[in-house]
Amino acid sequence: MTKINKRRFQRITLRPAAAVIKEPVKITVIDYDEMHYQYKEVVSPDECQVFRDKPTVTWINVEGIHRPEILEKIASCFNLHPLILEDIGDVEQRPKMEDLENYIYVVLKMLSYDTESAEIEIEQISLVVGNNFVISFQETVGDVFDPIRERIKNSRGRIRKMGADYLGYVLVDAIVDNYLKILDEFGEKIEFLEEEIITRPDQMVLKEVYHLKREIIFLRKVIFPLKEMVRSLERSDSALIKDSTRIYFRDIYDHVIQVADSMEMFREMLTGMVEAYLSSLSNKLNEVMKVLTIIATIFMPLTFVTGIFGMNFRFIPGLERVWGFPVAIILMLVIGIYMLRYFKKQNWI
Amino acid sequence: MTKINKRRFQRITLRPAAAVIKEPVKITVIDYDEMHYQYKEVVSPDECQVFRDKPTVTWINVEGIHRPEILEKIASCFNLHPLILEDIGDVEQRPKMEDLENYIYVVLKMLSYDTESAEIEIEQISLVVGNNFVISFQETVGDVFDPIRERIKNSRGRIRKMGADYLGYVLVDAIVDNYLKILDEFGEKIEFLEEEIITRPDQMVLKEVYHLKREIIFLRKVIFPLKEMVRSLERSDSALIKDSTRIYFRDIYDHVIQVADSMEMFREMLTGMVEAYLSSLSNKLNEVMKVLTIIATIFMPLTFVTGIFGMNFRFIPGLERVWGFPVAIILMLVIGIYMLRYFKKQNWI
Amino acid sequence: MTKINKRRFQRITLRPAAAVIKEPVKITVIDYDEMHYQYKEVVSPDECQVFRDKPTVTWINVEGIHRPEILEKIASCFNLHPLILEDIGDVEQRPKMEDLENYIYVVLKMLSYDTESAEIEIEQISLVVGNNFVISFQETVGDVFDPIRERIKNSRGRIRKMGADYLGYVLVDAIVDNYLKILDEFGEKIEFLEEEIITRPDQMVLKEVYHLKREIIFLRKVIFPLKEMVRSLERSDSALIKDSTRIYFRDIYDHVIQVADSMEMFREMLTGMVEAYLSSLSNKLNEVMKVLTIIATIFMPLTFVTGIFGMNFRFIPGLERVWGFPVAIILMLVIGIYMLRYFKKQNWI
Amino acid sequence: MTKINKRRFQRITLRPAAAVIKEPVKITVIDYDEMHYQYKEVVSPDECQVFRDKPTVTWINVEGIHRPEILEKIASCFNLHPLILEDIGDVEQRPKMEDLENYIYVVLKMLSYDTESAEIEIEQISLVVGNNFVISFQETVGDVFDPIRERIKNSRGRIRKMGADYLGYVLVDAIVDNYLKILDEFGEKIEFLEEEIITRPDQMVLKEVYHLKREIIFLRKVIFPLKEMVRSLERSDSALIKDSTRIYFRDIYDHVIQVADSMEMFREMLTGMVEAYLSSLSNKLNEVMKVLTIIATIFMPLTFVTGIFGMNFRFIPGLERVWGFPVAIILMLVIGIYMLRYFKKQNWI
Amino acid sequence: MTKINKRRFQRITLRPAAAVIKEPVKITVIDYDEMHYQYKEVVSPDECQVFRDKPTVTWINVEGIHRPEILEKIASCFNLHPLILEDIGDVEQRPKMEDLENYIYVVLKMLSYDTESAEIEIEQISLVVGNNFVISFQETVGDVFDPIRERIKNSRGRIRKMGADYLGYVLVDAIVDNYLKILDEFGEKIEFLEEEIITRPDQMVLKEVYHLKREIIFLRKVIFPLKEMVRSLERSDSALIKDSTRIYFRDIYDHVIQVADSMEMFREMLTGMVEAYLSSLSNKLNEVMKVLTIIATIFMPLTFVTGIFGMNFRFIPGLERVWGFPVAIILMLVIGIYMLRYFKKQNWI
Repeated sequence: MTKINKRRFQRITLRPAAAVIKEPVKITVIDYDEMHYQYKEVVSPDECQVFRDKPTVTWINVEGIHRPEILEKIASCFNLHPLILEDIGDVEQRPKMEDLENYIYVVLKMLSYDTESAEIEIEQISLVVGNNFVISFQETVGDVFDPIRERIKNSRGRIRKMGADYLGYVLVDAIVDNYLKILDEFGEKIEFLEEEIITRPDQMVLKEVYHLKREIIFLRKVIFPLKEMVRSLERSDSALIKDSTRIYFRDIYDHVIQVADSMEMFREMLTGMVEAYLSSLSNKLNEVMKVLTIIATIFMPLTFVTGIFGMNFRFIPGLERVWGFPVAIILMLVIGIYMLRYFKKQNWI
Repeated sequence: MTKINKRRFQRITLRPAAAVIKEPVKITVIDYDEMHYQYKEVVSPDECQVFRDKPTVTWINVEGIHRPEILEKIASCFNLHPLILEDIGDVEQRPKMEDLENYIYVVLKMLSYDTESAEIEIEQISLVVGNNFVISFQETVGDVFDPIRERIKNSRGRIRKMGADYLGYVLVDAIVDNYLKILDEFGEKIEFLEEEIITRPDQMVLKEVYHLKREIIFLRKVIFPLKEMVRSLERSDSALIKDSTRIYFRDIYDHVIQVADSMEMFREMLTGMVEAYLSSLSNKLNEVMKVLTIIATIFMPLTFVTGIFGMNFRFIPGLERVWGFPVAIILMLVIGIYMLRYFKKQNWI
Repeated sequence: MTKINKRRFQRITLRPAAAVIKEPVKITVIDYDEMHYQYKEVVSPDECQVFRDKPTVTWINVEGIHRPEILEKIASCFNLHPLILEDIGDVEQRPKMEDLENYIYVVLKMLSYDTESAEIEIEQISLVVGNNFVISFQETVGDVFDPIRERIKNSRGRIRKMGADYLGYVLVDAIVDNYLKILDEFGEKIEFLEEEIITRPDQMVLKEVYHLKREIIFLRKVIFPLKEMVRSLERSDSALIKDSTRIYFRDIYDHVIQVADSMEMFREMLTGMVEAYLSSLSNKLNEVMKVLTIIATIFMPLTFVTGIFGMNFRFIPGLERVWGFPVAIILMLVIGIYMLRYFKKQNWI
Repeated sequence: MTKINKRRFQRITLRPAAAVIKEPVKITVIDYDEMHYQYKEVVSPDECQVFRDKPTVTWINVEGIHRPEILEKIASCFNLHPLILEDIGDVEQRPKMEDLENYIYVVLKMLSYDTESAEIEIEQISLVVGNNFVISFQETVGDVFDPIRERIKNSRGRIRKMGADYLGYVLVDAIVDNYLKILDEFGEKIEFLEEEIITRPDQMVLKEVYHLKREIIFLRKVIFPLKEMVRSLERSDSALIKDSTRIYFRDIYDHVIQVADSMEMFREMLTGMVEAYLSSLSNKLNEVMKVLTIIATIFMPLTFVTGIFGMNFRFIPGLERVWGFPVAIILMLVIGIYMLRYFKKQNWI
Repeated sequence: MTKINKRRFQRITLRPAAAVIKEPVKITVIDYDEMHYQYKEVVSPDECQVFRDKPTVTWINVEGIHRPEILEKIASCFNLHPLILEDIGDVEQRPKMEDLENYIYVVLKMLSYDTESAEIEIEQISLVVGNNFVISFQETVGDVFDPIRERIKNSRGRIRKMGADYLGYVLVDAIVDNYLKILDEFGEKIEFLEEEIITRPDQMVLKEVYHLKREIIFLRKVIFPLKEMVRSLERSDSALIKDSTRIYFRDIYDHVIQVADSMEMFREMLTGMVEAYLSSLSNKLNEVMKVLTIIATIFMPLTFVTGIFGMNFRFIPGLERVWGFPVAIILMLVIGIYMLRYFKKQNWI
């Protein structure tokens, strides 16, 4: 297997690209309550310990999960179960939610759409939501959380007044909202292709349709378990999620359902487009064959007539007469006109 | 992306047309009980406050949701949750029902069918049903509620004797009844196309079939969640819906099921029509190819025979004889007749 | 829209034919218990009142539902809810069962199969089953209940000893049994078409297949809700249905399931037949094309050879020799035989 | 409708062949406990009565259900409900289980595979399992129970130590085990056809595929309700089925699930085979058309060139020269070679 | 039926290859607790008895299930139910779990992928998990358990500290993890074929697609019941599975779901590939037909013109003139150019 195949295949099975391994791990801490705000980039995970016992809400963001020793330190500091630790490090997780007594573990996929290659890139996000802390683990640097950081810093909206559960909601919400944006891009593309496939049905458009279809098959694998996951977040009886926060998760659930619905709609539209393409191919073949048949049906008998009078028999009636050639031409005209009439009656021309 | 694509795409994701934004917001209030009736067009939402505390039923109809400050005033007056306010302003909601303690929030889609373009237009309606008031929010001016306004004004039927929950039912019922009318238009169109596709199967008919298919894919997205929504209205244990009103919601449920059933039936009929179209194309191709093959099979050997006697060899038997030409003609006739018989045996002619 | 389209469309949406409206309404009363039997044709619905309070079982059969004033009189006499009255008059109801305290309302479809046009005709039957009465509403005169009338009159079987709930069962059973008969007709037709499509696959057979397919799509709309309806009849905890009658409804349920199963089987068989038809078309096209290709491949090179020796060059080797023509003929024979061998090797002939 | 169609149709709707009616009814009784064993062929059903009250297990096997008076006698002796009696006599029953207080009624289908005609024959078996008796009703003489009779006679295995419920299990098990054998035959046939359709894809193989597909559609109608039936036997809270026997029914359930799974797998494999057949037809058509196009594209221009030099103009350059003919031949060779190269580049040859 | 068919068929119905029968049965015992470790190859199953009553965890691995007397000895020693014994010996079991009081019986399939033949080989594994022992039965020698044996021997990880339930988990986990590896191989193959079918769409690639499709149909039969089985292991209220072990089974469940999801995704991708292949065939046919039609449409009229001037009439205008030939050539050029323009306008060239 060549290197290129390897990489493409990894997208299917959701494995991390090998390139990722070399990057350093970046850990940032945001600690806040209604009054205070602190932002810190930490070098060693040990520095996180101080925040554990403070009553303020602490958001520890870990970018890079390829250094087990770092994950282990955090795990032991926040008392995470070994299996959870394993799940954080394994980027092939299905979106799911697990309610352990002292924290809730949530894993889901952050998507980003590369407009150029028209491919969706995927990154696994693990969230550990505790009583007064949220730890988020990302595969690589770069995320969709910047607006949230802004809101915390500038104390915009409710966020500084709410607890760690609300922070968890806000993070999940940011990821799901991004799905809607990607679907918008898909929608535009599908609209465009639909236009194309009717006006200029060629192989290239079909390839793009199949490409989109595949991306959607792929997306479903990510989004279907998400539905269930958000549902159980909303309905969980964990004390970590306050009742006033629960309604927000219902809101996310509505969004996820909407994403799933649109995806199903796109899928059906794409299937319809393949069908339309094939039927337009069939149609064209019919047109081509009609042209061929008309031409052949007119000229074969005519050529046959010329052949008759082209034979070298000494005695062929009319050959020696002045009226011979005009009569032959008229005969051929009659045959030609009769054929054209037949095709007109058959509605072929 | 061109402007045209933008607009078409908005239909898929259910976003409001940009044009809407400029219209002013129109608020009307109808206040009634068995004895009294009052109709008022209000300029500022503050005027609604007086109706809140009166025991009469008040229907506040807001046409236009693009001015957040107006929505906010109403929300604060009637004590609506911030998330509900957000949902009212976001026209991409799935039909759903939420039971908050003091009011029920219902969101659904009002459809209108543009016969000319054969496209369904969509408008989101939000209803807030409280103890003695109903607030309805529409995207634009114009709705299907005029007969209801008439009934209230003229005290026709039960409506003036019933409470706000019955008014809520009547509004939802008007919207759903309109779906049935649109389905009727669809049904007629499908009947017509079915006739066409058998008698005159051309590309245009197929395009219309695909157009209808797409409209139905689109409709399902609106109607399927509606089923669930009406179900939960009927079964909700909210004190806001009286037992005597509950049976009416069951009636709406029956209608929604009927709409969903018909839609599925239409979908299957359209799929069957595409299939029939393709099989009739195949059939035609076969016919065309038979004609071509018959012509070629008859005239190719004949032309070959003329070719033989057209060769310039000095010594070809028969060329110099009087009987040469008639014999050649007879030979060709025999070949032609044999070929025709063969095709008759093959059932091709 | 022409008149013809209008009528056909009505079948889809289950609306009554306009013609029905003119017929008079016929009301008959059968009143019986183990000892007594009375049959009466009543002119005014008021005459029904006397039967309401008698302990005997009374079956009021109303043929024609287009005169609202008659329905209203019956409704007020037997205390029917306004919504039930509305449902009785609206022939587009889905089969359903509603358990109101004093009576059970059942609506379902009576089918009749017109062998000539191969179309299923549909008529809505509403049943109101009370403590000691059954009221049945039909769209038009004519039904499948005559054997039941006979059984009551002649006191055959259990019927005279049982209550109104058993009469309700007997009526529903008669309608469902008729479904089985119609399915038998379908089965025969499908068997016949299956034979045809293999031996004589032409467009006409395919049209009949599509016709049957559509009738079955249509039937499903009627039968699927029926399943649920009979189920709720069997399981209802209404005091109106005695325990000893309940087992009979289970029997109907078995029949409905059997109808639904057979319908699904027919649907799959018809789908398979379309598929088989298309694959046989493809096969034929291949055959036709092979014939064409064989003919062209043999005669085109041969005609080319005759063309070479038909050119008017003065110096062509062999033209002037006695052996010229035989050699040319042998050359052509060799080419022809070689081509035939090639096709034999390709398994084309 | 001819006679042949009649018979084939009966298979679909599961009606008994008319021929069956004439056979006499054969009743055999096997009565046993751990110590005693008695086998008896009875002439009149009245003789069964003596066995009813004995504590030993009694198996009454009735072969032939077309004589109602015999069934009625047995029914009245063992106190069977009239509806059960009706079900026993009606061979179109879906597999089901009914738990009446004093006995359990089970109806299912015994299959036999006719290797020659490759058709499955079906026979309905009704079982009435009471406290100390089992009555089995078969449509015709001949069954799959002989090994069971042997086991009882020779006291092999547990059977003589167990009660009537275990006998019921053993009978159902024998029937279901036979399904597995039939599936094996199907599996072999499918393997064979899969080989065939790749190496020799002709119409005959396709017909066999469709035949198998239809047999499987038909089988599903028998097996799907069986699943549910065995499930309710296992889970029934009837006192007639001892707890120690219950685990055996779970074993049958596993077998039924396995049959259903294999059937679904066969169905998918057959669908895949039809698809493969069609795509191989398309492929062949492409091959044929390429041959035709290559031949026509090479020889049409060449024949045109010979035509040019075959024209009878007096003044055509080169006609009179010695080099005329070789130049023309070389020109034609160049054209031919150019065409062949073009086809090579197009990957057609 | 030939031998080859026999063997291939056995794969479908999951029967053991006949060859297996001759191998001797190999029994190994690993007995351990936190302190002690003992490995032993036993000759007679009787030797297992000593381990039964020791408090240490004992893993008895039986490779070969074709000698009933050995299975029976083990069964009687560990008190296994006769039906369980039967299930162990029957390799056509569906994956399932049965909770008997003193032990849990688990049966599932161990897969191995033969890269060369691209076929999945299957082997049934039965596990009996008791209080302090696990007995595993395999069809043949060779398994995926070697890393586990290593871990026990070298006391790596938790395994030596945990009980028999954890050992059961570890064995099931090893088997399921192997599924993921096989899916990876599938994924690579599918990626490769997807590339191929676009660049070089020939029959061989299609055959491989069908082969993979069939393997996946086959796999589903193994994996779908597994889902349910692992679920019931996790949720069982058996005292044999400690609460601390339960979370590990949830982990396996996640893996099984992931396997099932990927399989569905692969299936859809393969279906899409067949579709793409067919549409690319259609496209190619269109291209071929266009070439043919263009050639025929240009050269047939031209050849006809040469035919006219090749006729042997004495009086054909122009034949005798010097300008005759050039005019004819120009006429033909004009016809040719006109035809080419027509095809350009039709977008065919």
